[in-house]
Amino acid sequence: MAGYEVATIESLSINLCSKGGVNKYPAKAHVRRVAQATGKSQGLIALEGEKSAYYSNSDQKRHWRQDRYFYYITGCNEPDCYVTYDIGKDILTLWLPTIDYSRVFYDGRTSTIEEALDKYDIDQAKYLKNKTRNLQLKTICKPPRPWDHRILVLGSGTSLTTMADYKDTTTLKNSMNACRAVKDRDEIELIQKANDISSAAHKAILTHLKDLNTEAQAEGLFVDVCLSHGAHEQAYGPIMGSGPRAGVLHYMANEHKFAESQLLLVDASCEWDLYASDITRTIPLNNSSPGQWPSGEAKSVYEAVQRIQEECIALVRPGEKFVDLHWHASHMAIDALLGMGILEGDHMEIFHTGTATAFAPHGLGHHIGLDVHDLFPPSSKADESRVSDESVVAIMGLQTSSDVQKAYAAFAQDHSSWAARPDFSRPEHFHLRLASLQGVATLDTPPLEPGNIVTIEPGLYFNKFVLETFFLNDPKHRKFINTEVLKRYMPVGGVRIEDCILVTEKGYENLTKAPKGEKMLRIIHEAWR
Amino acid sequence: MAGYEVATIESLSINLCSKGGVNKYPAKAHVRRVAQATGKSQGLIALEGEKSAYYSNSDQKRHWRQDRYFYYITGCNEPDCYVTYDIGKDILTLWLPTIDYSRVFYDGRTSTIEEALDKYDIDQAKYLKNKTRNLQLKTICKPPRPWDHRILVLGSGTSLTTMADYKDTTTLKNSMNACRAVKDRDEIELIQKANDISSAAHKAILTHLKDLNTEAQAEGLFVDVCLSHGAHEQAYGPIMGSGPRAGVLHYMANEHKFAESQLLLVDASCEWDLYASDITRTIPLNNSSPGQWPSGEAKSVYEAVQRIQEECIALVRPGEKFVDLHWHASHMAIDALLGMGILEGDHMEIFHTGTATAFAPHGLGHHIGLDVHDLFPPSSKADESRVSDESVVAIMGLQTSSDVQKAYAAFAQDHSSWAARPDFSRPEHFHLRLASLQGVATLDTPPLEPGNIVTIEPGLYFNKFVLETFFLNDPKHRKFINTEVLKRYMPVGGVRIEDCILVTEKGYENLTKAPKGEKMLRIIHEAWR
Repeated sequence: MAGYEVATIESLSINLCSKGGVNKYPAKAHVRRVAQATGKSQGLIALEGEKSAYYSNSDQKRHWRQDRYFYYITGCNEPDCYVTYDIGKDILTLWLPTIDYSRVFYDGRTSTIEEALDKYDIDQAKYLKNKTRNLQLKTICKPPRPWDHRILVLGSGTSLTTMADYKDTTTLKNSMNACRAVKDRDEIELIQKANDISSAAHKAILTHLKDLNTEAQAEGLFVDVCLSHGAHEQAYGPIMGSGPRAGVLHYMANEHKFAESQLLLVDASCEWDLYASDITRTIPLNNSSPGQWPSGEAKSVYEAVQRIQEECIALVRPGEKFVDLHWHASHMAIDALLGMGILEGDHMEIFHTGTATAFAPHGLGHHIGLDVHDLFPPSSKADESRVSDESVVAIMGLQTSSDVQKAYAAFAQDHSSWAARPDFSRPEHFHLRLASLQGVATLDTPPLEPGNIVTIEPGLYFNKFVLETFFLNDPKHRKFINTEVLKRYMPVGGVRIEDCILVTEKGYENLTKAPKGEKMLRIIHEAWR
Repeated sequence: MAGYEVATIESLSINLCSKGGVNKYPAKAHVRRVAQATGKSQGLIALEGEKSAYYSNSDQKRHWRQDRYFYYITGCNEPDCYVTYDIGKDILTLWLPTIDYSRVFYDGRTSTIEEALDKYDIDQAKYLKNKTRNLQLKTICKPPRPWDHRILVLGSGTSLTTMADYKDTTTLKNSMNACRAVKDRDEIELIQKANDISSAAHKAILTHLKDLNTEAQAEGLFVDVCLSHGAHEQAYGPIMGSGPRAGVLHYMANEHKFAESQLLLVDASCEWDLYASDITRTIPLNNSSPGQWPSGEAKSVYEAVQRIQEECIALVRPGEKFVDLHWHASHMAIDALLGMGILEGDHMEIFHTGTATAFAPHGLGHHIGLDVHDLFPPSSKADESRVSDESVVAIMGLQTSSDVQKAYAAFAQDHSSWAARPDFSRPEHFHLRLASLQGVATLDTPPLEPGNIVTIEPGLYFNKFVLETFFLNDPKHRKFINTEVLKRYMPVGGVRIEDCILVTEKGYENLTKAPKGEKMLRIIHEAWR
């Protein structure tokens, strides 16, 4: 795709030609911070980078994506490397694969030692040609079970030979996560750049909406704009959900025509130098009145989500707990659903029953950085390997943190069978499963601090399968749902609006410039000729 | 991207709205052919489909690509399945993962038994919820070593219980490869459709060349056209090599501006329903005279490659040996290089020394189908796990098959140190490494037959690193190379032209309609306003 560059980018007032002012990725500063966070003054950190591999029974290479921990302390985006860091001596060493000269004609080649020293912020680079060394690194970094993630190893010794005796993976991982959650200036610039390119791609969908008839065409245009600006990787599979597809949160087939769909949900964003952006816009599909909502229901749902997003963004500041923002959004969603007449009954009763999760099933957002779902910083007290009872209550959105103890006691009494251990077979608790993954804020999660970048992404959805299978046939939920009103709202499909928000000293800065709300509608209207 | 659809597709006279006339993928017919090819009348075939997985230390799902053998006998493009086929009873069973209802809101869901029976050409479908059954299938299909490819298992028993006792992976794999090499009508239609969409994308680059200034923009446009036509996957990473990048055969960074580059090599193609296309075009970048070659050197190289391709395509017919076509191309390349003055000396002496591999390093082509580098059918006699001495000679392109014995004897005498075992450290033999992979024709490879689809893709390249590191400093090659003339040709970078050719009863049919040669130049010229 060509021709979009000047118009869309200039209107966003960004410069896409420079590398965002970053000369060398600050790997050394990162590894020093990580080492400090471990509290150790001696020892060796070792990590394996992502290996190259082939697809099963094929000579085609698997899509390769560098391990994010590895990149964080090396800045090296090449396959088949290792890294070690001697904490006491402050020496960061990158281990490079020996160059396969017989493949240079085919694939180009990986870096030489000289090139690596020139490109990366490291102290030394060595080839992995020494078999003993190679085997030592392999053994040290081997995950306990084949299906485990790559491990992060901290050894008490200072040499690879003594390292194998003692491995501590938990301390290093927690230290990494704590450091990664607070972005430095270079990282903020990279995320800003990813946001700027993604914003240009979102805007291109608005200005070319007249020419788009299918989800696939929208995806094509989006990816084209990102690629054309040099963003080679999407941060996640683009989601182009028109009509009912907007109600499947991670819909990625993008295979339907717009046809009679009222809305198009576009959740898509690129990476820049491995740093992610994450932006969602929901767009009216209204050929007869371009730039206007195709129904009163679509307008109501969009404006409700917009209100929730605006209020939650305005609350972002250092010291705020993310779960509090999530609860604020949950309460606003119930109010909105009551206002539309989709839900009927007592606000707090609905809240406690969990019926609103039928329409607002996911958390308000997550950290973003080297991964699109970056990690919430680890709590100082929590055992990371399990969800605490308190956290279960917290992410259920039952109470604000101020009176959680009281609420927890009452709740645990009512739900003694699962409060301590969530019952994943209960539809209103499906989202709790995410609690055992990264990226979910709990009560134990430290409050926001400057340098955090989080998404704020409320949504309201009308998913036929989920409603019919789990909520409408369950009397305790059914009694709160007005099915006559719901019927009118089903064609809306779903609405989500998502921006990337940087926590600053004084409050926040919205890094996402993709048009939304009135501005979005105006652009569609004006471009439609 | 929108707007390209009507114009480009109509001009290619194809219909992209239907699913290519294929209702159900003929899985049952495929598995019956495979079973027949094994020569067994009793027994059980078992295969594991590709599992879903996450990227290392991330909650993002790895790019998922179905195992091609699995698809060939199921037509099922869903993760985490197994298939079994009872040869004696002629029963094809698809084993489906149980549906994870807690993830439906997020990811949608996999097929139910009813849906699978409706979609796929199978006899029965079962859920993998039975733990014993699940474990049995896992055990049976486990590769001998963790890093091995998924294995194809043929058991003598007729039940999963007895299956574990006896496994034969070689017979089934050879039978699969033999069957997959001969495409049926459905498969030809799918490959044709992939070719048609890719051809439209190649043509779009010609008609929009004026607006393209970077490799990334060319990639963006190409991917956009494919996605917009519903082709969700590229058959391989798009190669957009301008100038010297055209000399790296699998260059995929696509990160340079065209700047002063003379040519743009576009090797890119999409899949359709898992079937690949594979098309390369090389395009003049000439803003002052659009649609004309920017230099006499560029014109000479392009026309030489064009001649080689046309002659080799014209030779495709049943009974022809692919290695003979390869040798024909090799001799034509030497003649062309002699004609341009880049090489000097005796044709056969250059041929035997292998100096031409500095400029024409790769094979003439490969089969194409479910994989872009589909398998050459196995030879009846060869031990597949190693390259025979004879094959080494054959793929070196030393002689035509008619007098290989004589040539081999003479050659082995001269090269006794490596003839029996190729020395991969010798640059002129680098491409021999491919011989141990799939996709390389040897003397033992059966001749072409109707239903084969092969690429014909000659190329000539000027790779500075390869020339300087391996050829110009080696007296035995250096003496044939005129460096003064070579200097003039270096800026050309490289030229490759590649089409997909179906072997028919009477000869061949070219499935690739992307414009090339004079037609290509005319389109660029006419679109440039």
